[in-house]
Amino acid sequence: MATDSPLLLAAVTLLSAFQMGYLARRVGWSRMAHKILPPVVSGPPEFERTFRAHQNCVEFYPLFLVSLWTCGMFFSEVLAAATGLVYMAARQLYFNGYTQSTKKRLPGFYLTLAALLTLSVLAVVGITRGLLDKYFYTPI
Amino acid sequence: MATDSPLLLAAVTLLSAFQMGYLARRVGWSRMAHKILPPVVSGPPEFERTFRAHQNCVEFYPLFLVSLWTCGMFFSEVLAAATGLVYMAARQLYFNGYTQSTKKRLPGFYLTLAALLTLSVLAVVGITRGLLDKYFYTPI
Amino acid sequence: MATDSPLLLAAVTLLSAFQMGYLARRVGWSRMAHKILPPVVSGPPEFERTFRAHQNCVEFYPLFLVSLWTCGMFFSEVLAAATGLVYMAARQLYFNGYTQSTKKRLPGFYLTLAALLTLSVLAVVGITRGLLDKYFYTPI
Repeated sequence: MATDSPLLLAAVTLLSAFQMGYLARRVGWSRMAHKILPPVVSGPPEFERTFRAHQNCVEFYPLFLVSLWTCGMFFSEVLAAATGLVYMAARQLYFNGYTQSTKKRLPGFYLTLAALLTLSVLAVVGITRGLLDKYFYTPI
Repeated sequence: MATDSPLLLAAVTLLSAFQMGYLARRVGWSRMAHKILPPVVSGPPEFERTFRAHQNCVEFYPLFLVSLWTCGMFFSEVLAAATGLVYMAARQLYFNGYTQSTKKRLPGFYLTLAALLTLSVLAVVGITRGLLDKYFYTPI
Repeated sequence: MATDSPLLLAAVTLLSAFQMGYLARRVGWSRMAHKILPPVVSGPPEFERTFRAHQNCVEFYPLFLVSLWTCGMFFSEVLAAATGLVYMAARQLYFNGYTQSTKKRLPGFYLTLAALLTLSVLAVVGITRGLLDKYFYTPI
């Protein structure tokens, strides 16, 4: 594995969890602003966009964690942590854009996908290299 | 890292996964009781509260796992595992309360936040200490 | 722990993340086919089934990851990875079935549960054995 004590990955992961907590809070504030009491999840378009923005972040969060850690453990911790920060910035851009209009969610969303793709392609490289080394290594 | 073979963390994590499975089952039972066939997710208030209670648990579950493991690996495994059990009890309180009334979800929810905050603050301490040690350590 | 460098677990995990990305894409395609713009999540039955199929996969994904890794780290990596592949096939069966009719989701769903149960029971065995070894071991 690329690292023994993955402090950078842990730090980025914890930061991203704080971000997720903050985004959940934003939904709560939107509930208050529009007086929409749980368990109701429908209301004015602005609330529904905020709610869906958060849902989309929730849906993608495990995919982010998986690609962050497989990239960081089997390819490069520093590169994974840096790309993880890009993903977080992209998610914020996405969320802020989406709360304004459905269309404005797109730039952040595409950047999100680019970060996820980077992490997962590097993870594939690292894991493939590791599998070849471990199971198909032939010393000359 | 604080631990080599994180058996306590793994045990609490697995228990929490069983709890999540049980809560999903509760939604299924509520579907049956109110004859609400998937994919419908709206119905009488009691069903909608049960459904949303579960959704909220799902949304927070990755944040719980992240703070449990970062706290356990970089601060203290025993403390993290114990706080993890508190979180599970809080979630159960929240879920049971929410199925009764929207207001009764609050005590469990606040306890949930307290457990999450404890885990994540200790994780921040542990990770910061680790980062200082690893990247800024100057032997005298 | 059963393994030092869990490459097989990492490989299956990354594959499952790709699958989740693909299923999210299927919801996007269904949106386009039925001209349902976000943040709307209701529409013709076929779209709603596709949407709920994905949601259910999202809800169970952390439970899958937890049982895959606890089984793989504390019982057997190869067995966990193989059962993980079964889970992925079951999820695909579930998703494809659900998009066709509510009833056709069931075979895949039951297979999903069987895979999860296998993983988590083996994880319980492995973790219990580990805990007994670590905390209650008495050398003769």
